[in-house]
Amino acid sequence: MSETPVISALGKAPRFARGQVRDLRIRWAYEEIGRPYETHLVDFRDKGADYPRWQPFDQVPALREGDIEMFESGAILIRIGEQDERLLSREEQARWRTISWTFAALNSVEPFLFVPAILSVVARDAPWLGEAREALRPIARQRLQRLTDALGEDEWLAGPFSIADIAMLTTLRMAEDALLEALPTLIAYRQRGLARPAFARALQGQMNDLAEPSDQPSQGE
Amino acid sequence: MSETPVISALGKAPRFARGQVRDLRIRWAYEEIGRPYETHLVDFRDKGADYPRWQPFDQVPALREGDIEMFESGAILIRIGEQDERLLSREEQARWRTISWTFAALNSVEPFLFVPAILSVVARDAPWLGEAREALRPIARQRLQRLTDALGEDEWLAGPFSIADIAMLTTLRMAEDALLEALPTLIAYRQRGLARPAFARALQGQMNDLAEPSDQPSQGE
Repeated sequence: MSETPVISALGKAPRFARGQVRDLRIRWAYEEIGRPYETHLVDFRDKGADYPRWQPFDQVPALREGDIEMFESGAILIRIGEQDERLLSREEQARWRTISWTFAALNSVEPFLFVPAILSVVARDAPWLGEAREALRPIARQRLQRLTDALGEDEWLAGPFSIADIAMLTTLRMAEDALLEALPTLIAYRQRGLARPAFARALQGQMNDLAEPSDQPSQGE
Repeated sequence: MSETPVISALGKAPRFARGQVRDLRIRWAYEEIGRPYETHLVDFRDKGADYPRWQPFDQVPALREGDIEMFESGAILIRIGEQDERLLSREEQARWRTISWTFAALNSVEPFLFVPAILSVVARDAPWLGEAREALRPIARQRLQRLTDALGEDEWLAGPFSIADIAMLTTLRMAEDALLEALPTLIAYRQRGLARPAFARALQGQMNDLAEPSDQPSQGE
């Protein structure tokens, strides 16, 4: 734990990415436990020829900590949680419940919020874009309803605030407002999570690093 | 480790699901280490009112092992790996590389193969279905190309065969053949993985449990 962790993050990115890049999850986790970290800033369009050896999909974030190199925000969250039980309980059932919900955020919820957003970028002029997004909405709604039912009157997903909440709350930030409007439980959960001071510091950190945009007018927004 | 683990799996399911349900990942992991497991079979359409307390999204698989209950195939793979180092190394860098690739399979590759398949179900009569799937294909291709580059001439993703390969190979089974045809490295990787006797036993286990289909003609296939 003596080495300062280094995470890759975007230094130049299109405007639509600001505040949505996945290094936010890692910043948030470190802010929660008060652990200093450094950033290795890369350009959205050209991260350097060597970068895929660190992050095979040419994405951010990746983590370097002493001799350890790894990638994927979910995996890095688990590592941080293992280093600090405030974010991942060491009690066995609580630990596995937290890891289950971390995967659920990224594999059972995020794809149904993120892929429609991707579609809006890759097919933004297509006449069928609205219909295609509408066709995927019932699944997103169903997943969010299930999440609502599971959360019930609880404050957080798996007992105390944890990496599972960081994964899920950053995922819920991708949801269109229309998807959440009939789900006051989730709106309150999102507000409660994003009101945490550590989140505000993490978001500010990402925005500061993105201060010099590389938007080109031809990219559209 | 004395309790026999119980996984939820589908007992009745539409034909298109057979051989593709995610409990396959867990069966495969147990078959690799020779650990007996039991199945709790549920119906695709009605899993019972209590089931969401075990699996909040009403999906399979979920795991019960002694006092522990958890869900999400990726999370369960990590648990099985922690119980048997043949599937998840205890050496620190190897462990985190394996966990990174497990998340990569489920969060950076699977959504771009799975959501187009979902679209084909929810919008199967839409005149724009082909165009929408085509619009998402370049991202899927790019992810698979990155995976090819990362694999290089290696046999498996993270040193010896691991839970990362189980996650990635079951994900690659969702890919249309057209996406892989220009990527002989991935075709060979998939063949190598699916040729493992433990995979064959896992697939046979799933198919046996699905022996009584509940297909209704009106569902289409």
